[in-house]
Amino acid sequence: MTIRLGLVGVGKIAHDQHIPAIKASPDYELVCTASRQGSVEGIPAYTSIEAMLDGEQVDAVALCQPPHVRYDAAKLAIEAGKHVFLEKPPGTTQAEVVALADLARERGVTLFASWHSRYGAAMDAARDWLAATTVHGIQAVWKEDVRVWHPGQEWLWEQGALGVFDPGINALSVLTALLPRPFFLRDAVLEYPANRHAPIAADLTYTDATGLPIGATFDFRQPGPHNWDVHAQTEAGTMLLAKGGNELWIDGELKTTEPEAEYRGLYARFAGLIRDGGAVDADTVPLAHVADAFMKGRRVTVEDFHY
Amino acid sequence: MTIRLGLVGVGKIAHDQHIPAIKASPDYELVCTASRQGSVEGIPAYTSIEAMLDGEQVDAVALCQPPHVRYDAAKLAIEAGKHVFLEKPPGTTQAEVVALADLARERGVTLFASWHSRYGAAMDAARDWLAATTVHGIQAVWKEDVRVWHPGQEWLWEQGALGVFDPGINALSVLTALLPRPFFLRDAVLEYPANRHAPIAADLTYTDATGLPIGATFDFRQPGPHNWDVHAQTEAGTMLLAKGGNELWIDGELKTTEPEAEYRGLYARFAGLIRDGGAVDADTVPLAHVADAFMKGRRVTVEDFHY
Repeated sequence: MTIRLGLVGVGKIAHDQHIPAIKASPDYELVCTASRQGSVEGIPAYTSIEAMLDGEQVDAVALCQPPHVRYDAAKLAIEAGKHVFLEKPPGTTQAEVVALADLARERGVTLFASWHSRYGAAMDAARDWLAATTVHGIQAVWKEDVRVWHPGQEWLWEQGALGVFDPGINALSVLTALLPRPFFLRDAVLEYPANRHAPIAADLTYTDATGLPIGATFDFRQPGPHNWDVHAQTEAGTMLLAKGGNELWIDGELKTTEPEAEYRGLYARFAGLIRDGGAVDADTVPLAHVADAFMKGRRVTVEDFHY
Repeated sequence: MTIRLGLVGVGKIAHDQHIPAIKASPDYELVCTASRQGSVEGIPAYTSIEAMLDGEQVDAVALCQPPHVRYDAAKLAIEAGKHVFLEKPPGTTQAEVVALADLARERGVTLFASWHSRYGAAMDAARDWLAATTVHGIQAVWKEDVRVWHPGQEWLWEQGALGVFDPGINALSVLTALLPRPFFLRDAVLEYPANRHAPIAADLTYTDATGLPIGATFDFRQPGPHNWDVHAQTEAGTMLLAKGGNELWIDGELKTTEPEAEYRGLYARFAGLIRDGGAVDADTVPLAHVADAFMKGRRVTVEDFHY
């Protein structure tokens, strides 16, 4: 049976990723949208989730708004008996995701906290390759131009927003999925523009119980092409997991050919959870790492940022 | 069989709480200490945990040092096959506690992340009383004079330290144990002395999926007597859980008579976990709330603090 889906928050990520993935999937029918401004041609458009839930029969909703309004929308939807797909990060705190998961279990509906980079086309190959060798060190480097990837998005810089951890949490979702052991922060430096409430760059030093050197560098100030890369030095050679989990290179040679299909993977997983009787998949570990960095990290002030 | 215990970090909390509780317990023999400066009369004293583990046969260690050195000591002890008791907070990040729990399970030893206020003498009575009525609002108020409770403790203010959340996490350990539903932060203000890296006060507004108003106020600048109180307004009257979980008052009348015995409770629990084949009890939820507050909270600068 087709899942009747309502899409909430029709902005950049909805147009770039959600709508194409939903249209390509046999599992879903996109029946309506709710957004203050955006809409999808030919589909009923509401300006609030309340009006959408009143006006249309939907089985599930996908929430793509900025994270600070996601909890209230998710709660409304769960209490209306709808399955809920959360864009990343799933909330502004770990605890609100835990509260939503608790509520979803109580109501018997699916809550899916999605981490799209974990569905990168080369993730399984990279995990298997690392598991078969001895790793000496691993570093995630997530650098991009915020003006290109988040044009004009003032919410990213507001009090309580994640700043560069918004893309950086993708790197943490990848590292936590790649490495067999839990890792933890030894040292962190967070760079705050003097005129902003959220970091524009972060340098993070992690390790695990074996003492493995693990690093992560995030920067929103990279002009030109972006890097969403994981580098590893191993007994069997050097690994580069490039393009946010989508290409595996070993010693400079490309080893994978699968095309990027992250959101198709996410929507297939969401449909599976719904068909599994309303199962909950709400991993907060990447967000716990971000919260740890804010708790333990050193703040330094850098020059103003303007779009 | 008596558990041979080594005590690591012989400072204020060790003298005030751990040593009396260990001496009063039939479960333990205190066989040695490791501390840069402190010691216990009549008991072999080492200046490092490494020397202590080399020099004495112990079954378990209790770690009472400041949290920033706790991970390395715990890892050493677990890898030496010792059961580990962690003072609160159990680490400087959530992730390092998760890593220790993972390692303890791998080695088959107990890891106990202790939350002493949860062992307050009136905690069960308060939980039962709240569960039997309708709660309209609940507030934790933890205010004390840092000069009295943490005299000269510079580590409290260093980068990555918790400041007023060091006592405040006790309040969060109590609220998370009292309330049946997960709650989450709506708004937070953290006050930082201009000359310090950690907050001296915090005002936290929480709620849960039912919309219950939940508040927490922490302050290190209270002269005179301290408050470690939880107030609740309910259908059945007003509740005051006073003295850090040790006295239950309903409508101004004291309802409990059990004396405070938090650390006796903790050490009984630790012995139970050890006898249960090396079970792990490492709840990180109170620390997750603290990390959420650092991630989401607004920082304001207040006047310098000096001891």
